[in-house]
Amino acid sequence: MQPLSHGERATGAARGIAQYFAQVRVRSEQLCEHLPADDFGLQAMPETSPLKWHLAHVSWFFETFVLKEFDARYRPFDPAFEMLFNSYYNGVGRPFPRPNRHLLSRPTLDTVYAYRRHVDGAMQSMLDGGGLPEALLRRTVTGLHHEMQHQELMLTDLKYNLACNPLYPAYRDAELPTVVSAQPLRFVGFEGGLVDIGASGEEPFSFDNEHPRHRYWLEPYALANRQVTNGEYLAFIEDGGYGNPLLWLSDGWASVQKECWTHPMYWRRIDGGWYEFTLHGLQPLAADRPAAHLSYYEADAFARWAGGRLPTEQEWEHAAASRSADEGQFCHPEDCLHPGPGCEQDGIWGMYGGVWEWTASPYVAYPGYRPASGAIGEYNGKFMCNQQVLRGGSCATPPGHVRASYRNFFYAPDRWQFSGLRLARDDAGRDWR
Amino acid sequence: MQPLSHGERATGAARGIAQYFAQVRVRSEQLCEHLPADDFGLQAMPETSPLKWHLAHVSWFFETFVLKEFDARYRPFDPAFEMLFNSYYNGVGRPFPRPNRHLLSRPTLDTVYAYRRHVDGAMQSMLDGGGLPEALLRRTVTGLHHEMQHQELMLTDLKYNLACNPLYPAYRDAELPTVVSAQPLRFVGFEGGLVDIGASGEEPFSFDNEHPRHRYWLEPYALANRQVTNGEYLAFIEDGGYGNPLLWLSDGWASVQKECWTHPMYWRRIDGGWYEFTLHGLQPLAADRPAAHLSYYEADAFARWAGGRLPTEQEWEHAAASRSADEGQFCHPEDCLHPGPGCEQDGIWGMYGGVWEWTASPYVAYPGYRPASGAIGEYNGKFMCNQQVLRGGSCATPPGHVRASYRNFFYAPDRWQFSGLRLARDDAGRDWR
Amino acid sequence: MQPLSHGERATGAARGIAQYFAQVRVRSEQLCEHLPADDFGLQAMPETSPLKWHLAHVSWFFETFVLKEFDARYRPFDPAFEMLFNSYYNGVGRPFPRPNRHLLSRPTLDTVYAYRRHVDGAMQSMLDGGGLPEALLRRTVTGLHHEMQHQELMLTDLKYNLACNPLYPAYRDAELPTVVSAQPLRFVGFEGGLVDIGASGEEPFSFDNEHPRHRYWLEPYALANRQVTNGEYLAFIEDGGYGNPLLWLSDGWASVQKECWTHPMYWRRIDGGWYEFTLHGLQPLAADRPAAHLSYYEADAFARWAGGRLPTEQEWEHAAASRSADEGQFCHPEDCLHPGPGCEQDGIWGMYGGVWEWTASPYVAYPGYRPASGAIGEYNGKFMCNQQVLRGGSCATPPGHVRASYRNFFYAPDRWQFSGLRLARDDAGRDWR
Amino acid sequence: MQPLSHGERATGAARGIAQYFAQVRVRSEQLCEHLPADDFGLQAMPETSPLKWHLAHVSWFFETFVLKEFDARYRPFDPAFEMLFNSYYNGVGRPFPRPNRHLLSRPTLDTVYAYRRHVDGAMQSMLDGGGLPEALLRRTVTGLHHEMQHQELMLTDLKYNLACNPLYPAYRDAELPTVVSAQPLRFVGFEGGLVDIGASGEEPFSFDNEHPRHRYWLEPYALANRQVTNGEYLAFIEDGGYGNPLLWLSDGWASVQKECWTHPMYWRRIDGGWYEFTLHGLQPLAADRPAAHLSYYEADAFARWAGGRLPTEQEWEHAAASRSADEGQFCHPEDCLHPGPGCEQDGIWGMYGGVWEWTASPYVAYPGYRPASGAIGEYNGKFMCNQQVLRGGSCATPPGHVRASYRNFFYAPDRWQFSGLRLARDDAGRDWR
Repeated sequence: MQPLSHGERATGAARGIAQYFAQVRVRSEQLCEHLPADDFGLQAMPETSPLKWHLAHVSWFFETFVLKEFDARYRPFDPAFEMLFNSYYNGVGRPFPRPNRHLLSRPTLDTVYAYRRHVDGAMQSMLDGGGLPEALLRRTVTGLHHEMQHQELMLTDLKYNLACNPLYPAYRDAELPTVVSAQPLRFVGFEGGLVDIGASGEEPFSFDNEHPRHRYWLEPYALANRQVTNGEYLAFIEDGGYGNPLLWLSDGWASVQKECWTHPMYWRRIDGGWYEFTLHGLQPLAADRPAAHLSYYEADAFARWAGGRLPTEQEWEHAAASRSADEGQFCHPEDCLHPGPGCEQDGIWGMYGGVWEWTASPYVAYPGYRPASGAIGEYNGKFMCNQQVLRGGSCATPPGHVRASYRNFFYAPDRWQFSGLRLARDDAGRDWR
Repeated sequence: MQPLSHGERATGAARGIAQYFAQVRVRSEQLCEHLPADDFGLQAMPETSPLKWHLAHVSWFFETFVLKEFDARYRPFDPAFEMLFNSYYNGVGRPFPRPNRHLLSRPTLDTVYAYRRHVDGAMQSMLDGGGLPEALLRRTVTGLHHEMQHQELMLTDLKYNLACNPLYPAYRDAELPTVVSAQPLRFVGFEGGLVDIGASGEEPFSFDNEHPRHRYWLEPYALANRQVTNGEYLAFIEDGGYGNPLLWLSDGWASVQKECWTHPMYWRRIDGGWYEFTLHGLQPLAADRPAAHLSYYEADAFARWAGGRLPTEQEWEHAAASRSADEGQFCHPEDCLHPGPGCEQDGIWGMYGGVWEWTASPYVAYPGYRPASGAIGEYNGKFMCNQQVLRGGSCATPPGHVRASYRNFFYAPDRWQFSGLRLARDDAGRDWR
Repeated sequence: MQPLSHGERATGAARGIAQYFAQVRVRSEQLCEHLPADDFGLQAMPETSPLKWHLAHVSWFFETFVLKEFDARYRPFDPAFEMLFNSYYNGVGRPFPRPNRHLLSRPTLDTVYAYRRHVDGAMQSMLDGGGLPEALLRRTVTGLHHEMQHQELMLTDLKYNLACNPLYPAYRDAELPTVVSAQPLRFVGFEGGLVDIGASGEEPFSFDNEHPRHRYWLEPYALANRQVTNGEYLAFIEDGGYGNPLLWLSDGWASVQKECWTHPMYWRRIDGGWYEFTLHGLQPLAADRPAAHLSYYEADAFARWAGGRLPTEQEWEHAAASRSADEGQFCHPEDCLHPGPGCEQDGIWGMYGGVWEWTASPYVAYPGYRPASGAIGEYNGKFMCNQQVLRGGSCATPPGHVRASYRNFFYAPDRWQFSGLRLARDDAGRDWR
Repeated sequence: MQPLSHGERATGAARGIAQYFAQVRVRSEQLCEHLPADDFGLQAMPETSPLKWHLAHVSWFFETFVLKEFDARYRPFDPAFEMLFNSYYNGVGRPFPRPNRHLLSRPTLDTVYAYRRHVDGAMQSMLDGGGLPEALLRRTVTGLHHEMQHQELMLTDLKYNLACNPLYPAYRDAELPTVVSAQPLRFVGFEGGLVDIGASGEEPFSFDNEHPRHRYWLEPYALANRQVTNGEYLAFIEDGGYGNPLLWLSDGWASVQKECWTHPMYWRRIDGGWYEFTLHGLQPLAADRPAAHLSYYEADAFARWAGGRLPTEQEWEHAAASRSADEGQFCHPEDCLHPGPGCEQDGIWGMYGGVWEWTASPYVAYPGYRPASGAIGEYNGKFMCNQQVLRGGSCATPPGHVRASYRNFFYAPDRWQFSGLRLARDDAGRDWR
């Protein structure tokens, strides 16, 4: 939704975008090409859409918001798909009910792939043409970042769906890398003051909810050098954290009681040992990996127990703004608890690529925010209520997708994303705990 | 669960049973061999299991109740299947939760077919041997009738699951046969008295819930010559039947209000016309087919509106006892509103093969009933509460599966079976309505 | 709903009925005259109406079905009450929603008593007149038996509502009578055959659902001499009854799991001892009182565990038909485990006045049953689905209200009535357990 | 929870507080002294506690947080009340479940008044003594503001509970004052900049959640001179506002669909006219009163439809900071749409005393916020998630209770408070709509 970067404008850019388009699109299919047909229809809760639906919906996005808007000759693959694969855009029509997506055995997976080919062909023909309006190119890039968001969801949704199977099937058979010991936790101070928050416009891409860039007053604060580990979270459990209401937000304690939470979502206690369900199947719990799949409530309760708090999104962004998004993508969070290449030993590490970090900030509009007009305006703005901002990206986030100003958002009880936390404090000087 | 018929005993019968086994088993697979892989995992409500699960469960039945009990050398295909494909036998262990069957993407469909081959092979080896105990042969025949029950469920469950798809996919592309006008409704009187109810033991097979045969006192009664038609049911609708609480049982009226029922389950009102979703896709409603997919509440309300009542199961059985189960199997109820070959013009027609007929009788044990000991005793007995008996069989019932003493049972609000009704009255003489 | 008895017809009877009317009406008020105003609005679940609502509704019944029908000069106390205090008669109009009865703080209790006075006055004036039609007298007697049913509900509903208060308030402060040891359990045989079931018309009163009297074939059977005791039920618990699915009906086991049942409704386990909440407050559990407040599922599971079964309602009625309803009314079941005055030592005892006895019979219409026309026809008939028949009466049943042919009915999971069981068997000879 | 004001410290103040205590306490009882006993137990949804419970709980607060903490000689009235009348303080013990408060018929209302007398006596004795610690005095004042909050809830809860009665009972029989025409809507601009937000410590009292005072950067903005009226809201309805998903937040639209909202909570459409249920009973809707009983979703959708937005809580507080809280208390919002005495004609009016104004700000901790230690720390902090801030006070707020920095908070779907809105914009210059 934002102007193209200087880089894109410089190259003229339709050719570059066509290439980018091909790369992103093929990656969606690569993510699931090794899976049996049986896996593509799973939907264990309304939030976790079937793989097949994701593959179709991202194509629907290009069909609806690019081809139908910018290409007068475009012929829809099947008119019924407008409703079937609409996620939540009321401006386009009444979407097929989300909880029932797993019931769409038709169109078949083969037909969905044919749909993708149809959309790919139309997009590439269009992008091959000359003199394309910048609005079209910008919308296309938005569509690609939209598809990248769904690539992450394909992994987190599938993980949730497979976890319901007592056979604990693995998404990847490959072994998890060996764990390296986490560095000691340390706090790094920031001075605050009147800072700028939001995308600057120099980024290759940014969503509308990162705008407008605006001034924000920050008091001095400190952030932990790294994310909280499984080992630290286990200490919280062993200290009775799930049984002490004074550590919890009121709504959080209600969730603990109603859902009978006693540990993070994918942890399993078997014969006296702790295990964790991963995309590599059930694995012994590794103390030195980031704690993942926490709800906001759990992250908040842990922080209170640890004598700290969650950072605000502004604190996070200000700290992250000087770092580049260089972390890679894996099937499980790791290797983000240490200074990476180019990181200072006494800095803060692993802002991207481990787990999303819950912040203390509810998801609201920035001052002066205006959503785009038309159905595309429903992309982000209508969700600015009852959700919390997460920052950074996770091991399941596609490479090149995140940045310092990126705002992810989920409901406080949600646990099926790779979500964890980094501690904050009002000052850096105090010892931890 | 009943002694083999004289016929079976006479032939020695293992050879005959082996042949029967092969026929029944192959039929399950034939029912779905033309369907895409996407259809096999559908489960739109807890009651409608996925095709894949049905295919596995009926094999689990032979594995659990025949092979593991009678063949010491048998090796299970996969020990985890004992839990995954157990339906409700607590005596075998804690079954995998029914509402989550659609989440079992693994084992894959290919593996389930391999499981079937494994069980088929073991069964055939065993049946090829000599000197087999009669209990084994009897249990095998029970397993085949169990599989036939699931063949019917495969069709009714799939119909329900496909109906959730706004594309209205057809199970069969073939056209529905032309409808012949229904014969006028007429009542046929029966004298009653002290009659015998329940299986006589002369049947080729019967379930334990049809026993013991016992005396029952019947007052004189009359049954309609044929089942109620769509056209007759439409008159009930047009007379405001769904809006008049005085026609309904108290629980029925609560269902009407809560579920907003205004017509039978698969009827659709489109552009002023009535349509019906069928296994052949969406079709114009045919006035002269039996009304199908009614709940007990709807059948009961219709009967009250029509000035009649539902028959008791004893009235039904006594009337049906002289007729043979000669109706064929279709994908939609038809051709049962006329005297069939060998039927008398002034008799009652189509007791089998159209729609199951709701009776006024709650499903209870016959006097002196004893379920079998062990887990197999859970087959029928533990459901003898809160359900109503249906009699006759439907167009989806496998050939040779039903008989006069056969007792089917569902909850009063259930509508996804091919369930309809035949009117009864205390006397034959009065005019209808 | 049935013709007056010979006795009533003989006396002309309006005078007798006027006296009877006064007695029954005053008793409703006596039942709650010692209670604080705070108790009159309680409704802990939809089924347990507030005392105030009961007091008003029974007056509504006379207003609606007697005064408005038979007295042209009658002026309703307040037209709004027609809707507010209608229980479930759709023929009268749309009733105020049952779950919200506790929200009717207005009319106040004082106004409800004024309403009672208004109805009492009009009824007495009418009954003082001469030449009253028999239909009016019959309807009045029906109204009195209706009020007696609500007198029982006032006690059972209040018991449930008070039980939600951790202070365990007592309805009566008086002490419970001392318990006498129960006589040993013994079975008494009956020959069965073609018997008559249903009210004979010789009873002072009977409801329509006890008609018509009809023939019924009974196989030989045996009934226990007395009801099952707390001590016997405790043995079931201690034997793991609530943890063994093989003892339970399928729906019953689902209730056990969902509701976490581990004992009868009002039992409490405190500091290693068993207590029971009663209308006299929390009391130590008495082994030699009848087990009470069981669901049908618990009664059925106990019977299976005990090697017996529940009797059918026909078996119960046939056995009870020779005994008179002579038991008194108490706040807690007692004194019904012994031969009463005039009882034979080797007979069966305590058919009335202890706890209602669950039978194996679903509540259905007798052959030839016809409900009355008009709204009054909703009294009994529309509930003939999904419920089980209970027989006999309980300690909370008003004196003179029950008889051998009386049919009470509740849903299988219901536990807030004084409901227990008496064991049955197919033959008397076998030893118990 | 905040230090006493200079004024309180200056007077020494125990005497002043004792007087204040008496005034506030008696006011709670005056609010309901004219009501029948029947009204005191009503609870139509978990959030709306019975009057009796409110009367007891506010006494429990003094007992728990003042008397038990500061008076060693204090004897609790009844030890069971510690659990019964605990609202949500887990640090005190496990509270009696909120949804069941209506089931506490015991203690009776008389006993609750005796409880109040007991606490009043103990408090007054203590306050009569000399040399009291400041912490005690501060806690006492907190308890009085706590009781004032419940005085408002007594009115809003009772309104909701009475509204469930089809008789529409009035809390006050007095007539509503005549409505004066609302002044035209106009926007007043503010420059913003780096402002101070939060209580200054000069207020007579403030809650912990108004602290610490901190710097906040505000962009220029404009606020409407007055609150939105019923007439304006009606235009939104007539323009199809409840049928247009593009006007709503995603969660808001879900509520509209699920709850079938088509107008504010207490509006009723009768015979073509609009009415509003008020504490004076059902009244014709007055176009020139503030729109009340809106959810956050409705306030937000209206603002979007009107081309404006909701103000942030910082924008609101900055604008209100110069005005004094001089509005009186009524049973229905009125007289707040005009410049009050001392108001400038071109200023903003009615910030207090009409309806609470929803702000765009989720309820979060101010930077550096620390809740008090111990159970009293649960007062505000644990609710800082999933709720929205409302500012200003309503016609039901006790006099002297609110101020510019006061933060009220409710969930976005909540509608039973007197909640409305004031429009905001980024700039004052544009015309409205």
